[in-house]
Amino acid sequence: METIQQRFTVSFSYPVLFTTHLFDPSNPQLRLFFETFPGGDFRRKILFCVDAGVLTAYPELPLQAAEYFRSLPMEYIPEWVVLPGGEAAKNDPALFDAIVDAVDQFGIDRHSFVAAIGGGAVLDLVGYAAAVSHRGVKHIRIPTTVLSQNDSGVGVKNGINFRGKKNFLGTFAPPVAVFNDFAFLATLDDRDWRSGISEAIKVALIKDKVFFEWIEANAEALARREEAPMHYLIHRCAALHIDHIGGGDPFESGSARPLDFGHWAAHKLEYLTDFRIRHGEAVAIGIALDTYYSELSGRLTGDDAQRVIKVLLKLGFDLFHPALGEDDCAHLLNGLREFQEHLGGRLTITLLDAVGKGVEVHEMDDTLIRQSVNRLRSSHLAWA
Amino acid sequence: METIQQRFTVSFSYPVLFTTHLFDPSNPQLRLFFETFPGGDFRRKILFCVDAGVLTAYPELPLQAAEYFRSLPMEYIPEWVVLPGGEAAKNDPALFDAIVDAVDQFGIDRHSFVAAIGGGAVLDLVGYAAAVSHRGVKHIRIPTTVLSQNDSGVGVKNGINFRGKKNFLGTFAPPVAVFNDFAFLATLDDRDWRSGISEAIKVALIKDKVFFEWIEANAEALARREEAPMHYLIHRCAALHIDHIGGGDPFESGSARPLDFGHWAAHKLEYLTDFRIRHGEAVAIGIALDTYYSELSGRLTGDDAQRVIKVLLKLGFDLFHPALGEDDCAHLLNGLREFQEHLGGRLTITLLDAVGKGVEVHEMDDTLIRQSVNRLRSSHLAWA
Repeated sequence: METIQQRFTVSFSYPVLFTTHLFDPSNPQLRLFFETFPGGDFRRKILFCVDAGVLTAYPELPLQAAEYFRSLPMEYIPEWVVLPGGEAAKNDPALFDAIVDAVDQFGIDRHSFVAAIGGGAVLDLVGYAAAVSHRGVKHIRIPTTVLSQNDSGVGVKNGINFRGKKNFLGTFAPPVAVFNDFAFLATLDDRDWRSGISEAIKVALIKDKVFFEWIEANAEALARREEAPMHYLIHRCAALHIDHIGGGDPFESGSARPLDFGHWAAHKLEYLTDFRIRHGEAVAIGIALDTYYSELSGRLTGDDAQRVIKVLLKLGFDLFHPALGEDDCAHLLNGLREFQEHLGGRLTITLLDAVGKGVEVHEMDDTLIRQSVNRLRSSHLAWA
Repeated sequence: METIQQRFTVSFSYPVLFTTHLFDPSNPQLRLFFETFPGGDFRRKILFCVDAGVLTAYPELPLQAAEYFRSLPMEYIPEWVVLPGGEAAKNDPALFDAIVDAVDQFGIDRHSFVAAIGGGAVLDLVGYAAAVSHRGVKHIRIPTTVLSQNDSGVGVKNGINFRGKKNFLGTFAPPVAVFNDFAFLATLDDRDWRSGISEAIKVALIKDKVFFEWIEANAEALARREEAPMHYLIHRCAALHIDHIGGGDPFESGSARPLDFGHWAAHKLEYLTDFRIRHGEAVAIGIALDTYYSELSGRLTGDDAQRVIKVLLKLGFDLFHPALGEDDCAHLLNGLREFQEHLGGRLTITLLDAVGKGVEVHEMDDTLIRQSVNRLRSSHLAWA
C-alpha cells in the first residue's frame, strides 16, 4: 500500500525589545505589544512567574504590573509564582509542578500568556513548563541578567535537569516576545554583571571581529559598570545570537553547534565545582582554554591569543580553576568524552582560526589540552 | 534601542508506511528506512517501548526485532520498556520517568531513536517522553490499533495527563516515521476493532462524501472483520488526517479544530464513565449527537442524519449512554462549557451542513442539545 509522505513547514516569529522600567505607566512597550498581538477576540490572561531574587530587589513589581495591566483588555492574575533563582530552580521537579498547577488553577489556556521574570535558570524552567502545558501556552520572557538578556533569554531553548542531569528535559519553543529591561541590571552583583560578558566575547570571537575590537576598547568601561556600553553589548550580542538561530538550524536537527565555543570545558567545570562558579565565569575559563589550544594546535597566532586573554583579564575574569588540572586533567578530559557522547559519538568542537573566525574540528589532542591547562595555571600565578 | 525581530521557518517531513509483519526478516521496510535516513555517520541506537498488551499477544516481538536489527548498522537495545496500555499509561508520572530513565541509561541521544509499539495512549506517553528528552530524540511510531493507525498515531501530538487532567502536558512533535503494521489488528478484540472506525466516519462526514459512501457500502464487511476493507479504511483515513495537518495549522496556533467534530461530547462522556467506554465508542456517540443537533438546528436533512445513524448502527456502535442525560443533561452541558474554556472562551464546534461538509459554529443551544439527547435515548430503545 502506498506510503503517505507528510511534509509541512511552521513559521515562527517574535520580537526582542529593549527597554527600561517595563511596568512604568509611561512605558508603552508592553501595551503596544498586546494591542497588536493577534487573537484579541479571545479571553486572554497573563500569569507571572518570578525569580525570588528579583522580587526581593524589586518588591514593588507585582503592584506596578497590576496597575499597568488595569488598562489592558486582558485578565491579570494577581498571584505570582515565586521561584528560587539559579540552578536550584532546574533541579526541583516540584517547582515545575507548581507552575503547571498555577496554569491549571488560573485557567491559562493556549490563548493566554505565562510571563517569566528572572535569570537564565528561572527562564529555562518557566519556558519548559509553559511549552508543555496544554502543548504550549504563549510565553513571554523578561530576562533580568546580562547573560539571559544577551544569550539564553533571546533564544528558543528551555529545559530542566532530571536526576541532576543538566537540561535532560526540555524543548525548542520560541517565546512570543522577549523584553530586555535594562533597569534590572542595576542591582546585579559584580559577578553577575561580569558573567554575561563572556558570551558576548565568545560570539564576537567566532563571528564578528569588529565587535571583539569594540569589546577590547570598552573593557574598562564595562568593568566599571558603565551603563551605555553594557546596553550596546547586550543589543549586539543578542542580535548575533538571533541571527545565528534564525539563519541556521533553530531546532538543532543537525549537529553543528558553533555557539558551543568554550563550552565543553565550561560545562564540566560547572559540575566539578558543584555550580559554585557561574556559567559565564566557567565560559570565560573555557574560552581561555580553547584559545590557548587554538594557538598550541597552530591555528591562532600568539598575538591574537594574548588579545583574548587580555580582554578577559581586563574584565576581571579569573581564568583558572584548580579542578581543571586535577588528576592530570582526568576529570576535564572525561568531560570531553561526555561531550562527544552527548553529540552522538562524533565530536564537534569550535576553535579559533583568527579573532572573529571560528572553525569546527572533530578531534582534540589530550596532550595539547594538558598543555593548555598548564599554561592557564602558570599564567594565573603570573597574573595574580 | 532598536527592536530585533526573529523570524524563521522549520520544515518537518515524515513517511507513514503501511505494511504487515514489520520485523519479518523478508520485510525490507524498516531496513530501507534506516539505510536512507540521514545521519548514518553518527553512532545510532534504537530503544523500544511497548504496550504490555501487545507484548502479551506477540511475545516473540523482541527476539524478532533483535534478529532484524542484527544486520542494520545501528545499536539495538535488547531491554524493552514495557508499559501498561490504555489511559492508565498516561496517568502515572512514574511511567514517564521510566522512559526518560531508559533514555539516560542506554545513552539515547538526539541522533538515536525511541520506537513505540502500541495503542494511542502508549504512543502519546512515549511520544511525549521522547519529545522532551534531550529536547527531542528521534521518535518512531508503530501503532497497533485501528484508532492509532488511522488517526492519533499518524499526527503530531503527544501528551500525558496531569493530576487526572487529560493531555494537560504534551507537545507538538512530528515523529520521524510511522509504520502501520496491519498484522497487529488480528488480535484486537471486537470493541477495539470497531472503535477506530468512528474517526474514519468523522473525517469522511466533514471532508469526503465519497469516502462516507464507501464506508456505507462496506459497513457489513467491516463489521465482519474483513481485512481488505479495513486496510483501505485505515489508509484513506490516515491520508485525510495527514492532509489536514499538513495543509492547515499543524501546531494549532489558531483555534480552528474541525477534526474535533463529535468530540466535545465524547471527551465528557469518557470522563463521566471513568474511561470505561473507549474513545472511539464515545466519538461514535458524539457523532450521533452532533448529527441529530445538525438536523434539529436546520442544517442537515433528516435523510442524511439517518444515513449517519444507520452506518454507525451497522458497525455495531451503541449510540446512547445514560450519562448523557443525567441531571437533565447538566454534566453534558457542563462539558460544553469546559470545552469552551479550553478554547480560550470562544466556542468553536464543527457541525454538518451535509454529508461530507463540515461547518464551524460558535454557539450551541442547550435546548437543542437536550432534544438531541432525548432523540438518541428514544431511538436507542427502538434500536434495542
